[in-house]
Amino acid sequence: MTPFREKLLEAARKNRSWLCLGLDPDPARLPDPLRGREVLEAVEEFSRRIVAATCDLVCAYKPNSAFYEALGPEGLALLQTLIGEIIPKEIPVILDAKRGDIASTARKYAEAAFEVLGADAVTVNPYLGFDAVEPFLRYGDRGVFLLCRTSNPGARDLQDLPCGGKPLYQRIAEKAREWLWRVQTPGELGLVVGATYPEEMARVREIVGEDLLLLVPGVGAQGGDLEEAVRVAADSRGEKAIINVARGVLYASAGADFAEAARREAERVRVALHKALAGPGAARGSLPDDP
Amino acid sequence: MTPFREKLLEAARKNRSWLCLGLDPDPARLPDPLRGREVLEAVEEFSRRIVAATCDLVCAYKPNSAFYEALGPEGLALLQTLIGEIIPKEIPVILDAKRGDIASTARKYAEAAFEVLGADAVTVNPYLGFDAVEPFLRYGDRGVFLLCRTSNPGARDLQDLPCGGKPLYQRIAEKAREWLWRVQTPGELGLVVGATYPEEMARVREIVGEDLLLLVPGVGAQGGDLEEAVRVAADSRGEKAIINVARGVLYASAGADFAEAARREAERVRVALHKALAGPGAARGSLPDDP
Repeated sequence: MTPFREKLLEAARKNRSWLCLGLDPDPARLPDPLRGREVLEAVEEFSRRIVAATCDLVCAYKPNSAFYEALGPEGLALLQTLIGEIIPKEIPVILDAKRGDIASTARKYAEAAFEVLGADAVTVNPYLGFDAVEPFLRYGDRGVFLLCRTSNPGARDLQDLPCGGKPLYQRIAEKAREWLWRVQTPGELGLVVGATYPEEMARVREIVGEDLLLLVPGVGAQGGDLEEAVRVAADSRGEKAIINVARGVLYASAGADFAEAARREAERVRVALHKALAGPGAARGSLPDDP
Repeated sequence: MTPFREKLLEAARKNRSWLCLGLDPDPARLPDPLRGREVLEAVEEFSRRIVAATCDLVCAYKPNSAFYEALGPEGLALLQTLIGEIIPKEIPVILDAKRGDIASTARKYAEAAFEVLGADAVTVNPYLGFDAVEPFLRYGDRGVFLLCRTSNPGARDLQDLPCGGKPLYQRIAEKAREWLWRVQTPGELGLVVGATYPEEMARVREIVGEDLLLLVPGVGAQGGDLEEAVRVAADSRGEKAIINVARGVLYASAGADFAEAARREAERVRVALHKALAGPGAARGSLPDDP
């Protein structure tokens, strides 16, 4: 299997895009033409048309496990089809599952994400410590994104607690660097930092340095600023910041034109990210200019 | 639906047991008579026989979602059958899923756990803060167990970080009390504290007071002491400490007698818990004496 980082960078460069499309298919929000049909069939059709309309505009897809689990076992089967069949092989899939458990159980979660579902990367909760993360890293060719600073308002409840003079989320960023050294078969370890907290994001990039990938949810519906997010999260070459948008693209139109509307919105975001990276005061680097 | 606490206390009193049996069915560890059969069929047969052999000896079952997810969509269907059909209605089911996500996603995880799978309670990761926990609590009649001090060695990595003069896990225990007050439809909120850290467990019981339920994994295979765990975790009536054992019971024998061996081991644990609660220096209370 192509290592996650390689696959991601290739897709980002080929599609000239750091937009990651979040796939959170909510039956209550499906466009009108798909309503009245059997739910799973409608969600599958929705997924196929959204992916077909956007796959040359994104660097990755991020299906959200909860939305498929809520559809029952058949929802999981659809997630399998989505990853194995609907999403083109050359676009990496980050499974947003936020798993975290003791080592013997984490091995099973890693098996489920990487072998059963075939994801290229997965989001993992750091609260249980290193031995809960290692089983995912051991795959070597897959990506692991540790939750660091999440995009929700409640992020402050624990992640801002002062721990020895620093907020907890900064300790997590430090741990990520430390854990990368401790693992024997080094896998790809990145961090999740919400666009809703740009200052905290800047601090995280400072702590982890240029090399780590940042996965950035929270722009759009959650209120994070797109341009600011990518400027702050990217490295000095204008890369390694995976900007996730879900609802803004998925539900751009409730009409028969939902796929075209999703494409227009994805293209708008893709170009906005480019401009932000190329604009004044921005990191300037290897990103090819738009025609 | 009978509220989780009521169902739990009824089962514990009727079966005179605070043993919770963890259901972590690992295909690699199935007893010999079930080997060579189709995996899902073997796991289902294993689950049916284990549950039939132990259901009058436990206060709850705790299926571990990872082990079912690793079996693919059909594994999830089996988990549904396990909860809805195999486990007797009067025994509560704690789904060990350790979920945690922003509110809109947490609602979907709650739907998956409580509505699709039909669990009575679920384990939840606190790292994302109150808004990630609330969607589970809103059900009111279901239980929510927040990870506080986990049983693995890596628990120390983050959970012991000093946060304003106290380790992080103690802050979580304080938050649990605070969050119970903030939720509008108060659900049942308990904490997960590993038997492998008895001192930390004592401190948690002190912080949360008599009323909260503690779910205690880590005895047996992970090395926690059974008697000490229940003495420290129980309230002054000798209740509210749910002691989880999985591998020690499930894999008590690899032979044709696996179900009888599981029953013997479950009974041994049940009696040991009783004796620990009745012994010198133990909390003495309402638990009925063994004949």
